[in-house]
Amino acid sequence: MLEPQYEFELDEALAKIRESLQGEDIERFRSDFLDYHLYDQAQIYLALAPEERITMYHYLSANEMADMFEIIEEDVESVEAYLLEMNNQYAADMLANMYADNAVDMLKQLKDERIWLYLRLMPMEAAREIRALLNYEDETAGAIMTPEFVSIVANQTVRSAMAILKSKAPDAETIYYIYVVNVDNVLVGVISLRDLIVNDEDMMISDIMSERIVSVNVKEGQEDVAHKIRDYDFLAVPVVDENNVLLGIITVDDIIDVIDEEAVSDFSGLAGVDVEEQSENPFVAASKRLPWLITLLFLGMGTSTLISQYEGLISEASILSVFVTLITGTSGNAGTQSLAVAVRKIGMQDDEEKNLFRTILSELATGLISGLVTGVTIALVIGVWKQNFILGGIIGISMLVAITVANLAGSLIPVLMDRLGFDPAVASGPFISTFSDLTSVLIYFNIAKHFISTLM
Amino acid sequence: MLEPQYEFELDEALAKIRESLQGEDIERFRSDFLDYHLYDQAQIYLALAPEERITMYHYLSANEMADMFEIIEEDVESVEAYLLEMNNQYAADMLANMYADNAVDMLKQLKDERIWLYLRLMPMEAAREIRALLNYEDETAGAIMTPEFVSIVANQTVRSAMAILKSKAPDAETIYYIYVVNVDNVLVGVISLRDLIVNDEDMMISDIMSERIVSVNVKEGQEDVAHKIRDYDFLAVPVVDENNVLLGIITVDDIIDVIDEEAVSDFSGLAGVDVEEQSENPFVAASKRLPWLITLLFLGMGTSTLISQYEGLISEASILSVFVTLITGTSGNAGTQSLAVAVRKIGMQDDEEKNLFRTILSELATGLISGLVTGVTIALVIGVWKQNFILGGIIGISMLVAITVANLAGSLIPVLMDRLGFDPAVASGPFISTFSDLTSVLIYFNIAKHFISTLM
Repeated sequence: MLEPQYEFELDEALAKIRESLQGEDIERFRSDFLDYHLYDQAQIYLALAPEERITMYHYLSANEMADMFEIIEEDVESVEAYLLEMNNQYAADMLANMYADNAVDMLKQLKDERIWLYLRLMPMEAAREIRALLNYEDETAGAIMTPEFVSIVANQTVRSAMAILKSKAPDAETIYYIYVVNVDNVLVGVISLRDLIVNDEDMMISDIMSERIVSVNVKEGQEDVAHKIRDYDFLAVPVVDENNVLLGIITVDDIIDVIDEEAVSDFSGLAGVDVEEQSENPFVAASKRLPWLITLLFLGMGTSTLISQYEGLISEASILSVFVTLITGTSGNAGTQSLAVAVRKIGMQDDEEKNLFRTILSELATGLISGLVTGVTIALVIGVWKQNFILGGIIGISMLVAITVANLAGSLIPVLMDRLGFDPAVASGPFISTFSDLTSVLIYFNIAKHFISTLM
Repeated sequence: MLEPQYEFELDEALAKIRESLQGEDIERFRSDFLDYHLYDQAQIYLALAPEERITMYHYLSANEMADMFEIIEEDVESVEAYLLEMNNQYAADMLANMYADNAVDMLKQLKDERIWLYLRLMPMEAAREIRALLNYEDETAGAIMTPEFVSIVANQTVRSAMAILKSKAPDAETIYYIYVVNVDNVLVGVISLRDLIVNDEDMMISDIMSERIVSVNVKEGQEDVAHKIRDYDFLAVPVVDENNVLLGIITVDDIIDVIDEEAVSDFSGLAGVDVEEQSENPFVAASKRLPWLITLLFLGMGTSTLISQYEGLISEASILSVFVTLITGTSGNAGTQSLAVAVRKIGMQDDEEKNLFRTILSELATGLISGLVTGVTIALVIGVWKQNFILGGIIGISMLVAITVANLAGSLIPVLMDRLGFDPAVASGPFISTFSDLTSVLIYFNIAKHFISTLM
């Protein structure tokens, strides 16, 4: 027998929801809307017109709205606009009802005055939790953790721990790990709900908890936290301060967002464009891409200026101009490869492991070998094609040097940026290729100049 | 008071473990080694020499070895070598003790004869489960799911469901979702362990289970599964066949690996290099990058051949050669931006949503706008710089056309590849820039040819 599965079609759902909104049928709206999964509720909410959303705020409680925002906070571009549609008390109540980490993600997109306004309108306890998180630096463990975890003391039975869990379950972001602390709130153990369930109810927590606690420091970067959760296959990781006092937890769903962000940022950097650009409006898209294009255009003008210094050489031997794009293009490709490998290597390593000098040295050697193979290949091809092995030699040697320089630049620039505290992914692919155009032209014409008499 | 936290230092751990291995001190080895987290056990294992690993196989049970391999299967490059070090029965027992999805990941890297050998040596039940999974196509839900889930019938109390859960917990990959099925094994509901815990023990499962089940079809692609888990913030998702019969589950830790893989593949594609390249040996690195470099070199030779057709034009007006790299470089940058946006858009959309025609049309318009702005800018700059607005106009118009073509190619090529069933990320950045070198040169010299008489 075939049971109906849950299927979600946005257009269909929108039509249904709009009907009940227009008919001012609160009961029907609530039963239809709340029957969808939170993520799908959010798809509907985001697709509605402002007037329709304003009606929704009257039909749903701040708590119900909070549940929905919980799951989409990271995807919502114009948080401010949505919050301004709500009355201030409703917005504050909604934020107070969210897990503190998610509320903070939303608040961070607002102006300071508005943040303080909402905090004033919230219950004190919620405002206190949020204020504490707001103080942590962006993209650290502190900024993405939630204080809504379950902690217990070691000196009790599984049965009493289960009773505590039952009472705390409605508010905790995860109940699948329970953290064991001492009287000073220092983290001394961890136990999974699975362990609680399989063990006898009379066992003591202290006997079955694990003391091998993998925790992260509150100041650690969010990417390091992401790597820990991914490597150890955890569902959550505890966050502690210097004295091992338990401050919060970070759950795997937040980490998926971090891993996604990290990938998108690397990818965007390599292409010199924000690949998350949502707009299908070509004017908006063009306006986001043009700053990079125009910047690189002026850098490219440098290359043109350089070539114009050699115009005399070119009119003497116009054959030289035939191979400029070949050399700039190939070394640009090699530089992009080297850049991508270096950015990835830097991203994957923990701070202690970083051996930047070795990365650069290895790229230099790789450049030399690739350059040698490519250079010899092109020298032979051009030698045979143009029946001119001197020309082939000039191109081949230029290629060797240009590729080596491009590989070096491709690895050196992100490594330097990382050292200086910038995101290495900002060293974009287009920048490296435009930069390597410049160096390649310089290398090529200088080598050609020396051989011009032999060539003619 | 400061409690000692779990800290792992590979070098330190290796020294300790080597000592007990060399001293043939099984007891000490087992207590030291098994005290580490599985992921850290694996770091040690991977760092040891083959002889040392062979001793380990005698000191640890196949089951203990299975736990460790569980957490690293996706990172292990030379699975075959490790399995060959073990005796065949030990290897088969280890594979049988792993979750079936992870065992399958490992087996897929072996030759058919070896797979059949291990399956023959395994307990029948484990072999049957693994054989079923091996039949699913790579990168589908079927290939990454595990059959080790907990399912119950609806017609029972929370108390009896908890008892079942307790007995199944040791073997299930997750116990945090419990799936409710009818007598035909058709999925009819889902309930989280959290719900079981907060509800009264006398409640009926049928009254508290959720019937809004988000499931994936066994043939669905793994990336679609990943998006579902990420969007809905699930810890696991059930996998069903066409008749909604429950076949397995996919857990969030496997999905993190898929998201990672997806990002790495997009990133590698954009750079024309496998960014996961582990080797620091420059010969190995160069040998992996050279195929792309040399292929593109020959494509670049096409551009050179094209330019050589215009050598006459260049010797007439050598000033033209000064701006070739500027036009090829800028349109290459624009094409790379467009490619990255298109690859990301294709990756983010579900199959039904794909409106390829709109993506291409939007890129075409974006190209026209960017090209217009860039073209006018460069026309003015060159007009003023060289005091020659005809030259400026030639460069500006060429830039406009070349950028538009590059944007079109950057979006069209991945969309076409996706349509034809290839991975759109293979349409690499270097390929687009080399291709746009060719078209840009063609555009530039053809436009210049028409104005040459006015220019001179």
